[in-house]
Amino acid sequence: MDLGISGKKALVCASSEGLGKACAISLSQEGVHVFINGRTLETLQATAKEISDAGGQVTIIQADVSTEAGRKSLLEVCPEPDILINNNAGPNPVGFMQSTQQDWDDAIAANMMAPIFMIQSVLSGMRKRKFGRIINITSAMVKSPSPIMCVSSATRTAVTALCKAVSKEAVMSNVTINNILPEMFDTGRQQKNAELIMRFTKVSYDDARKKLVSRITAGRMGVPKEFGDTCAFLCSQQASYMSGQNVQLDGGSYDGLI
Amino acid sequence: MDLGISGKKALVCASSEGLGKACAISLSQEGVHVFINGRTLETLQATAKEISDAGGQVTIIQADVSTEAGRKSLLEVCPEPDILINNNAGPNPVGFMQSTQQDWDDAIAANMMAPIFMIQSVLSGMRKRKFGRIINITSAMVKSPSPIMCVSSATRTAVTALCKAVSKEAVMSNVTINNILPEMFDTGRQQKNAELIMRFTKVSYDDARKKLVSRITAGRMGVPKEFGDTCAFLCSQQASYMSGQNVQLDGGSYDGLI
Amino acid sequence: MDLGISGKKALVCASSEGLGKACAISLSQEGVHVFINGRTLETLQATAKEISDAGGQVTIIQADVSTEAGRKSLLEVCPEPDILINNNAGPNPVGFMQSTQQDWDDAIAANMMAPIFMIQSVLSGMRKRKFGRIINITSAMVKSPSPIMCVSSATRTAVTALCKAVSKEAVMSNVTINNILPEMFDTGRQQKNAELIMRFTKVSYDDARKKLVSRITAGRMGVPKEFGDTCAFLCSQQASYMSGQNVQLDGGSYDGLI
Amino acid sequence: MDLGISGKKALVCASSEGLGKACAISLSQEGVHVFINGRTLETLQATAKEISDAGGQVTIIQADVSTEAGRKSLLEVCPEPDILINNNAGPNPVGFMQSTQQDWDDAIAANMMAPIFMIQSVLSGMRKRKFGRIINITSAMVKSPSPIMCVSSATRTAVTALCKAVSKEAVMSNVTINNILPEMFDTGRQQKNAELIMRFTKVSYDDARKKLVSRITAGRMGVPKEFGDTCAFLCSQQASYMSGQNVQLDGGSYDGLI
Repeated sequence: MDLGISGKKALVCASSEGLGKACAISLSQEGVHVFINGRTLETLQATAKEISDAGGQVTIIQADVSTEAGRKSLLEVCPEPDILINNNAGPNPVGFMQSTQQDWDDAIAANMMAPIFMIQSVLSGMRKRKFGRIINITSAMVKSPSPIMCVSSATRTAVTALCKAVSKEAVMSNVTINNILPEMFDTGRQQKNAELIMRFTKVSYDDARKKLVSRITAGRMGVPKEFGDTCAFLCSQQASYMSGQNVQLDGGSYDGLI
Repeated sequence: MDLGISGKKALVCASSEGLGKACAISLSQEGVHVFINGRTLETLQATAKEISDAGGQVTIIQADVSTEAGRKSLLEVCPEPDILINNNAGPNPVGFMQSTQQDWDDAIAANMMAPIFMIQSVLSGMRKRKFGRIINITSAMVKSPSPIMCVSSATRTAVTALCKAVSKEAVMSNVTINNILPEMFDTGRQQKNAELIMRFTKVSYDDARKKLVSRITAGRMGVPKEFGDTCAFLCSQQASYMSGQNVQLDGGSYDGLI
Repeated sequence: MDLGISGKKALVCASSEGLGKACAISLSQEGVHVFINGRTLETLQATAKEISDAGGQVTIIQADVSTEAGRKSLLEVCPEPDILINNNAGPNPVGFMQSTQQDWDDAIAANMMAPIFMIQSVLSGMRKRKFGRIINITSAMVKSPSPIMCVSSATRTAVTALCKAVSKEAVMSNVTINNILPEMFDTGRQQKNAELIMRFTKVSYDDARKKLVSRITAGRMGVPKEFGDTCAFLCSQQASYMSGQNVQLDGGSYDGLI
Repeated sequence: MDLGISGKKALVCASSEGLGKACAISLSQEGVHVFINGRTLETLQATAKEISDAGGQVTIIQADVSTEAGRKSLLEVCPEPDILINNNAGPNPVGFMQSTQQDWDDAIAANMMAPIFMIQSVLSGMRKRKFGRIINITSAMVKSPSPIMCVSSATRTAVTALCKAVSKEAVMSNVTINNILPEMFDTGRQQKNAELIMRFTKVSYDDARKKLVSRITAGRMGVPKEFGDTCAFLCSQQASYMSGQNVQLDGGSYDGLI
């Protein structure tokens, strides 16, 4: 299937590893020039090499998207993206009663205002050029908030609400805004989670992984390429009529009707 | 993007025209052998010719999927589909107070029990073969019921609830069940709707169409290929981790957060 | 709090026991004349005595609301209800692959068309009299469909969709339509469920109950009066501005955001 | 109906006028000692007089709940509330492209962190005392975000997600957390909105009001008492089994199924 986006430019935030990287790879395979971003030069260069070795066009931007300076760097290198993938490392788990002003300030900066300000910076240009695809990588916890991830859930859901509002105007200019809600993909993050379970509950790594996987109805973790290709499809010309939605990639785990 | 479904078999109900046809075309372009279905031989043959002229592999099944006999015919010709697209003509608009036992019986047969029994017939085989994609073409009215389409809304939403329940087990065997909710695509149906408006409100065909389009936030009707390609993507290997969902193709018109 | 409905007439379907009875009791305590219904005269008379002993005004109607004849009886005795509570025994649990045409026909009659036709019979009168309260007792499974209750989930969700559509017009005449979604109340039904668990898993009745209760986040079953009083509040003058909604009485168990 | 909360203490934020005041009045009529709050002493005293003249027990706290100092004042005067009603003036309407860092900072303080920190301050005590009712007055825009209210929608939806997460633990100790989503009540706010429409579109006040009312399916604005009494019912003993929900008081205007 030809997605019709060869030659487009995509700004992919926090994409040196994990799901952001998966999106960059899938987009680059469709001929999109990807601008990848991360805080660590080494990881960023390794990912860039992987993409260009496979024939993709890639530019690296070392920056922290959580900061105003970081966002400025991103937009200086790629001022007119056709595609924006909002992504960032999530807040650490913390119970509500333990959450501090600092926890909230950090999450608001990294997971709420970072994507909001990125969208504000690119939206007018996209609307003027009559093409834009904005994807927010949020979380299953937007639709199913959990106590231990309450700070993450609150800030990401704020982005979801903002984007629904904004999408109503953007779609008139062929700019779509959608969210992808992952749960649970086989990335470094889940390796860390398995290690935490291993340490705290004194089980083997394999048993810790089994425990994680037991939460997923499909009985397995997702493969990053499944995430990346879904992202690429949502960025396609064909996906022009779909906007303001929450696409759950969760192995069918969500219990709700809608 | 390679969807990884070349050589698969798809049973596409009510696919001689409209959105069902769009799905058959998009799937055939990915190398899927499509079994198309309709009640009128002539229309069916024309669609089959269109698909095979473009290099697709196609088999026709003249049958009415609303009847038990019709479903039997479909399954005799294609007993082991990898992909099932549930589709059928919807009930005519009718106000609730005017709806009769007959209206309900007809809609229950055509838009509720037809897809339910089709799924019941193919699910075990799909689960045994560890691959299955079931897509129900429902309607925007599942998430936004409207008075004049209340019979359609009720019966299609019943399918949606059933499928959510069933999807929880099916996904364990790599069988996904998803719904696509169209509103409003440029097919014969909307031409008829425009003609109705033209006649009842004494306006030109162009003005009638403008009136229809004014309900869509994107400011245009959807193109059938947009629908078909989304369907094809949901049938892909890559979409294996996505199940039990309602994908709205409505030009961003839905107002709700979730 | 004065609910402002003293002297109103309420037709409460399937109300000789369980949640229907709880609604009848709460309404009668607000001065509503309740018309209670059931298939067994003895149970019906016992409930009627309980209500009238407490000072309530009550009329019994022995009839099966699942049948056209039964609905006719109800409406002959109470042709102009101000309040309609739709309730009926639910379908037995059955897996999707085991469900038969008969299972579906029965559930469609009892849990889909019975409430739909009851509403159709009383709606015009309520609208003309500028007051009406319609409450459907559905189930938590409308918002969280489960495999073993898939037939129930499908038919009850059809009612929910129909009612949303109808509510848009009804509310203009001060007729509200809302659904209450119980999970899990301490009625005879849960006693039967506990006995089933007791028998199948060879545990004591107490342990069987503990197993049931473990599914409820609040850590306890609901008390029927909690259900009845919520129903009475939704029937109040004050609840006039609330319509088309799904009120979950489930001890906070539902996981979804919306 | 006896709500069983006579003698309880309720902290009602931003309650010198509008919907907060309506909640305070309804609660006081049930015998609840209400602690009302506002920034202007005069308005606060007038409301207090109204409540005490009607026989209610009332204490005033002049403070701005948006600030840490203000919240401290509230909790000093009422350190152990049984009921907390979170309310605050909403952000001014502003388009997304015009919204500034300041707009976001203000809304985050007033409409997101204020209720979140209030809940954090009272939750442990409520759980220890095995009774608590927390109601957030949010907005219809949580479920139907609108472009011009996007900042309000984002911040209020963050609270909704946080509360869903927190409610899962709180309900185990008989502490419920629910949201009421108003649209549109006949308070000073709608008078201001009507005046704005009057000025900008050069119509009469009556026509401006008609324009506002035309957005409501019920064809009228809500009466504050309808809001207050619903709030009081959600604070009742009987409402103990209902938590984590979004109750829409919108004259049946919301279009969505769920």
